[in-house]
Amino acid sequence: MVPRYARPAMTAIWEPEARFRIWFEIEAHATEALAELGVVPKSAADALWAWWATNPAIDVAAIDAIEAVTKHDVIAFLTWVAEQVGDEARFMHQGMTSSDVLDTCLAVQLARASDLLLADLDALLAALRTRAMEHRHTPTIGRSHGIHAEPTTFGLKLAQAYAEFDRCRARLVAARADIATCAISGAVGTFANIDPRVEAHVAAKLGLSVEPVSTQVIPRDRHAMFFATLGVIASSIERLATEVRHLQRTEVLEAEEYFSPGQKGSSAMPHKRNPVLTENLTGLARMVRGYVTPALENVALWHERDISHSSVERYIGPDATITLDFALGRLTGVVEKLVVYPERMQRNLDRMGGLVHSQRVLLALTQAGVSREDAYRLVQRNAMKVWESDGALSLLELLKADPEVTLSDAELEDKFDLGYHFAQVDTIFERVFGEL
Amino acid sequence: MVPRYARPAMTAIWEPEARFRIWFEIEAHATEALAELGVVPKSAADALWAWWATNPAIDVAAIDAIEAVTKHDVIAFLTWVAEQVGDEARFMHQGMTSSDVLDTCLAVQLARASDLLLADLDALLAALRTRAMEHRHTPTIGRSHGIHAEPTTFGLKLAQAYAEFDRCRARLVAARADIATCAISGAVGTFANIDPRVEAHVAAKLGLSVEPVSTQVIPRDRHAMFFATLGVIASSIERLATEVRHLQRTEVLEAEEYFSPGQKGSSAMPHKRNPVLTENLTGLARMVRGYVTPALENVALWHERDISHSSVERYIGPDATITLDFALGRLTGVVEKLVVYPERMQRNLDRMGGLVHSQRVLLALTQAGVSREDAYRLVQRNAMKVWESDGALSLLELLKADPEVTLSDAELEDKFDLGYHFAQVDTIFERVFGEL
Amino acid sequence: MVPRYARPAMTAIWEPEARFRIWFEIEAHATEALAELGVVPKSAADALWAWWATNPAIDVAAIDAIEAVTKHDVIAFLTWVAEQVGDEARFMHQGMTSSDVLDTCLAVQLARASDLLLADLDALLAALRTRAMEHRHTPTIGRSHGIHAEPTTFGLKLAQAYAEFDRCRARLVAARADIATCAISGAVGTFANIDPRVEAHVAAKLGLSVEPVSTQVIPRDRHAMFFATLGVIASSIERLATEVRHLQRTEVLEAEEYFSPGQKGSSAMPHKRNPVLTENLTGLARMVRGYVTPALENVALWHERDISHSSVERYIGPDATITLDFALGRLTGVVEKLVVYPERMQRNLDRMGGLVHSQRVLLALTQAGVSREDAYRLVQRNAMKVWESDGALSLLELLKADPEVTLSDAELEDKFDLGYHFAQVDTIFERVFGEL
Amino acid sequence: MVPRYARPAMTAIWEPEARFRIWFEIEAHATEALAELGVVPKSAADALWAWWATNPAIDVAAIDAIEAVTKHDVIAFLTWVAEQVGDEARFMHQGMTSSDVLDTCLAVQLARASDLLLADLDALLAALRTRAMEHRHTPTIGRSHGIHAEPTTFGLKLAQAYAEFDRCRARLVAARADIATCAISGAVGTFANIDPRVEAHVAAKLGLSVEPVSTQVIPRDRHAMFFATLGVIASSIERLATEVRHLQRTEVLEAEEYFSPGQKGSSAMPHKRNPVLTENLTGLARMVRGYVTPALENVALWHERDISHSSVERYIGPDATITLDFALGRLTGVVEKLVVYPERMQRNLDRMGGLVHSQRVLLALTQAGVSREDAYRLVQRNAMKVWESDGALSLLELLKADPEVTLSDAELEDKFDLGYHFAQVDTIFERVFGEL
Repeated sequence: MVPRYARPAMTAIWEPEARFRIWFEIEAHATEALAELGVVPKSAADALWAWWATNPAIDVAAIDAIEAVTKHDVIAFLTWVAEQVGDEARFMHQGMTSSDVLDTCLAVQLARASDLLLADLDALLAALRTRAMEHRHTPTIGRSHGIHAEPTTFGLKLAQAYAEFDRCRARLVAARADIATCAISGAVGTFANIDPRVEAHVAAKLGLSVEPVSTQVIPRDRHAMFFATLGVIASSIERLATEVRHLQRTEVLEAEEYFSPGQKGSSAMPHKRNPVLTENLTGLARMVRGYVTPALENVALWHERDISHSSVERYIGPDATITLDFALGRLTGVVEKLVVYPERMQRNLDRMGGLVHSQRVLLALTQAGVSREDAYRLVQRNAMKVWESDGALSLLELLKADPEVTLSDAELEDKFDLGYHFAQVDTIFERVFGEL
Repeated sequence: MVPRYARPAMTAIWEPEARFRIWFEIEAHATEALAELGVVPKSAADALWAWWATNPAIDVAAIDAIEAVTKHDVIAFLTWVAEQVGDEARFMHQGMTSSDVLDTCLAVQLARASDLLLADLDALLAALRTRAMEHRHTPTIGRSHGIHAEPTTFGLKLAQAYAEFDRCRARLVAARADIATCAISGAVGTFANIDPRVEAHVAAKLGLSVEPVSTQVIPRDRHAMFFATLGVIASSIERLATEVRHLQRTEVLEAEEYFSPGQKGSSAMPHKRNPVLTENLTGLARMVRGYVTPALENVALWHERDISHSSVERYIGPDATITLDFALGRLTGVVEKLVVYPERMQRNLDRMGGLVHSQRVLLALTQAGVSREDAYRLVQRNAMKVWESDGALSLLELLKADPEVTLSDAELEDKFDLGYHFAQVDTIFERVFGEL
Repeated sequence: MVPRYARPAMTAIWEPEARFRIWFEIEAHATEALAELGVVPKSAADALWAWWATNPAIDVAAIDAIEAVTKHDVIAFLTWVAEQVGDEARFMHQGMTSSDVLDTCLAVQLARASDLLLADLDALLAALRTRAMEHRHTPTIGRSHGIHAEPTTFGLKLAQAYAEFDRCRARLVAARADIATCAISGAVGTFANIDPRVEAHVAAKLGLSVEPVSTQVIPRDRHAMFFATLGVIASSIERLATEVRHLQRTEVLEAEEYFSPGQKGSSAMPHKRNPVLTENLTGLARMVRGYVTPALENVALWHERDISHSSVERYIGPDATITLDFALGRLTGVVEKLVVYPERMQRNLDRMGGLVHSQRVLLALTQAGVSREDAYRLVQRNAMKVWESDGALSLLELLKADPEVTLSDAELEDKFDLGYHFAQVDTIFERVFGEL
Repeated sequence: MVPRYARPAMTAIWEPEARFRIWFEIEAHATEALAELGVVPKSAADALWAWWATNPAIDVAAIDAIEAVTKHDVIAFLTWVAEQVGDEARFMHQGMTSSDVLDTCLAVQLARASDLLLADLDALLAALRTRAMEHRHTPTIGRSHGIHAEPTTFGLKLAQAYAEFDRCRARLVAARADIATCAISGAVGTFANIDPRVEAHVAAKLGLSVEPVSTQVIPRDRHAMFFATLGVIASSIERLATEVRHLQRTEVLEAEEYFSPGQKGSSAMPHKRNPVLTENLTGLARMVRGYVTPALENVALWHERDISHSSVERYIGPDATITLDFALGRLTGVVEKLVVYPERMQRNLDRMGGLVHSQRVLLALTQAGVSREDAYRLVQRNAMKVWESDGALSLLELLKADPEVTLSDAELEDKFDLGYHFAQVDTIFERVFGEL
């Protein structure tokens, strides 16, 4: 975890104290269920909840000191709780195994993290929608291969991003469901020493579903899918960040990250305003993607479980969710405050001498009976002259002057109409945003 | 693609001829829709379908030869088709861009590949179910950290695998839906030169849904999610393969891959029978996982698109699906033919002098009023003696002889009952397989 | 392997027949050494070499047919050779194990592949040097964050690439040494049944060094390092490819991939000339990088070996080397034929109203006694006006007019001298290329 | 960074204060050189060093507060230093750019981290050598595919690990040289505003070499190679950790991690002693490997630089080095304290009824004139009987009783001599450790 790329709400989920609080709740709910089943005295559960009602501070250092001897974190925690609660605490954890606590706790943490991420996505989607509506009809050049292709609108670029993050949201909902399961099934998952109803009770209390078959641990294909999904979302962040970085290039400058008063772009060059937020997002995306493979490698645990996954999750549990939360927040800010330059978009659109209309001429020639190959050749030979003039020549004028081009001047002029390209913009917006 | 790890049905999807056939169908369906809309003559569509009805061979070499000049694969293909069909072919591809064809074709190929993989998973699930039912009550030792933990059944191991691959199946269904979209939206996705109804028509004919907003290309977050899902499935394969490899170890030998007559395990050592199929699956899983990151890196294309994703997909489209198809088939064979040794399972279960029952004694002592810490200490000190004797000593006998252990001999003997551990096996089976 | 991204010389290394030829040579050299040691009759080695002298065709299909029964490739090969050579062949492979043949063969293949890649790098370095010398003093704008920073020369950009690939070459030389070892040490590497002198003999004949300690297999950390090195080289390819892609953007267009007669940039838009080769290289780099992690996962084989690495290497051995070979060749072509536009470079350099000289003014003010903070503020406030005018205003004129800027007009003008920036270009060139 | 997997010396390198101290030294050394060149007054350098001689505390919070406004870390630092040092500080950073400081600082940090890692490797190598010598002649079964193959010694296993980590050490020395370079070359690396002699001076003072050609930043192929090398080392750690995990399996139990007094293996099962340290190392290896790909993705910065690499390095700089340092330390402890059970090794070696000698009989039969195929068949048919008896039958006795086996009893008995396998152990040890 890098503090600079962390926000408090997400970070809090991963604090030791937060983890110990969840552990306690799992143990107390389980003891409660055990008491209902008559396995342990009701007084045991009551004692736990009575202590909890005093809102006790969790002494992380004391627990860590015990772990230094036992080399086992859950035993250290149970020992400390027993010291606080007293004799009744001995009924706690009856028939359970550490992983019942650890894995169910991780499920709670990842579910909470998912909820924050879903809220992040909602905020990003709202920002994208607002800016897309604002620029629904702002003309801009569409580029393939970094080269001018045909006109589009800036709103369409944002609508694409909206649709992409909307898919990401649906994927995250599915991934959340995948990891939000509770397992309290004992040492190898047979429920030999614990009734399955305990698991059902704890699951219900914590808002989790029941893990159908566990083997001491909740199977790690669930977590692999979760972190893989975060990696996909990070990659979508990179896509939008890359778009902004391109738009802010000196020669393009169609949009720009907000540059705050007092900000300095360079220690050496006072003239600089750099897309540092989106470059940063590009790097953060690399990190979240980098956590996918370790999560995949965690799946093949040995037999009923080994503990190799644990250290990996101590890193990527916090690191992937905290980084993605930060990145989504930062991206939302970039979108909300993005400074857009429609005039510059128009100027760039115009700078290539009308090349962007080449396809319409091609189609018109074909419609007029010219073979596709000939039409292509005719348009291409004129287009290349404009290209080489860097937009100083006009494709329309060259075509008019080309004796092999059989379209009339009026027909040709009609093909250079910008508005023509935007006829379906509202259709696409309706597909993406629903009724407008 | 490595021929040794490829099966014909999946390989056929990726053959050049198969690709060209899909391209033709996209173009012909589109021309048909264009004709209905009055954009091109109906005769154009008729001419295309009439030629197609002759079941023409696709001359891959001829198309490649044209591409060597044009350096553009779709143009090469259109040129070749035009040579075959004649003049009417000039109306084909009207208002479309190459990516309309390429990306929709890839969607068809990945959807078909998904269908094969889903069938593979069904076969694997069937095999797992059969073997799980067969060994529902076959006792075996459960192991955590490779160390004997508590008894379980071999059927439960297989039920876990079944549940895991059942989740994988659901994930693949979702991933298939993610990539099965059709885009026919023109040069930058504005439908400037093509009516959205053409897209709808082609999508319906090919069993795809309509891409809500494309930008010349179908957005690559869809494909990233698809290949990430394959990576998760591969990791689950690795998990089960690793289990078999462990079970076949000389010292364990509880199960064994089928060893066919005439097979040789080693050129030097005639005594060898090695788990080579599951080791092979472990390697194949690494490959399928290795394709996830390139797919994630493909998401951030520049502006409306660049073509960096294309070469990646030429590798991983075939390689990931062919390898996974092969691996699923191989794993199914391993499961179906797995030679299981219940007696050896029982012998291993018994070899540690009853250590596997330590928890039940711990619980009984706690129930009898001993503190958790004292109970743990009492059992641990006897268990360690058994451990160090490598199972020559008996935990039961040592406990009986320990004056601090206050349980009666009968109470102790009761805690060493194997059957006790299997009381919930049917419950778990019902969770996994439904009503039995 | 994707034929479109493969060149014949590299592909030939990985053909089945090539592999079988290396296997034979290993076996024959070993038999020769065994004969010298008196372990097998000299006639055995003679018989092998006599048959080999007939330049026999390798019947791959026949060998594959035998493997279908034995399920063991080396045994299949030995059986086939014995059929050809006759009775004397029974002394072949004496005391050896399959991996002695397989791993030593892989070493030969990877060493040969390295030699091709080193030649590729030499060609690339030569091309970079030529173009760097050509443009040593061609002014161009240096960009950080995609934003104009200060002037540099196009030759310096290429010199950087040269230095980077020169480092890559040194890394590949080291990686080649890492994998070019020979192991003929028997079933678990103890030389129990084979004299270490056999290994030394075969190593010398094949130009390999001796593996100090093998365990049936050559340890896979060597191969991991090799493929990781290829991944680094691929990333350097991506860097240079990305530079070209940026330079070819419509709004920048300072350089362009060669566009051959007859080439078509788009099926729809006849005006397009796209940087498709460097986009393709970007994708190929993703693939070669994707092979690194499977190679790293191959290191942790079980005990003296398992065979999980083998399938991975059947993919990445060919795929990584063939792809990288192709990519290096393609990049060399791009560099050699790159169309460079110095006038456009100059025009871009000039387009920001002199902003690129802001640092020199900052330094001059500081030297004249202004505090760093004040100097920064003074320059920044004028620079931002120029920035917002998109280069229509002149930084020099604004500074002259700013009463707080205490430098004389002549002093200011001196700071806007382009040539000033290139004083050390030759120094850097000497660092990179040595004496010029 | 996960505190649980971090050691103080390595962590200290990455503390903010440590970074700021290096920054200061770079700036002060540079100012010194600038003074010698007459660019700034000598008093400026003197003032900086005079302040430094007071051993001032670095007020990290104050610097962070300034950065919150400037959004630029180096400017924030310079401003704070200026506040401390006074007016003379304005000559600091003259002609330099932030990256001159940042990248050179990172080089110092990575070089220091490398030195710790090299010391870690030395300690690990020493431990491996000691234990290898101790068990040079301790017989144990060699296993391929997890299946008994032929005898080896436990010392040879450790010698293999020694040789592997010795290679890793050499790789790290090379990787350290790759990243230990100094760049002080100004805004785009042209030295326009700073004399190259400043760079040479700072490099010499900091023990770095001079970066031949930088472009504001030190090229990231260097760092990619560095982190890739750490990934290889991590994979070698995983290999040795996996070996220990296998050896500690209940059914194998030939060696065991040290289990300290008071340690608890399981909260539920008092009998457990688990290889948790090596399982933990397996997970840590996954993390260090996971950092390789982000480092590779960092290479292709845009033009002279973008800042996407920076966030990645803020994670992986500390995380990869701290994790690897911890892992090497932990592995060294595991090796040093490993509890080895030679008797159990011997028992396992003996448990398969002499199967491990099958190859020697095969060779003897071949030497005696039997064809390789017949010999294989004869031995295999007897070996399979022993295999299926789980070692209850004796291969030697079965062979004696097989009428087709033409070797005498004495000849056969000779082939079952264990000592025969260890004839070359000293030879291999000399290869690995030099003269013994």
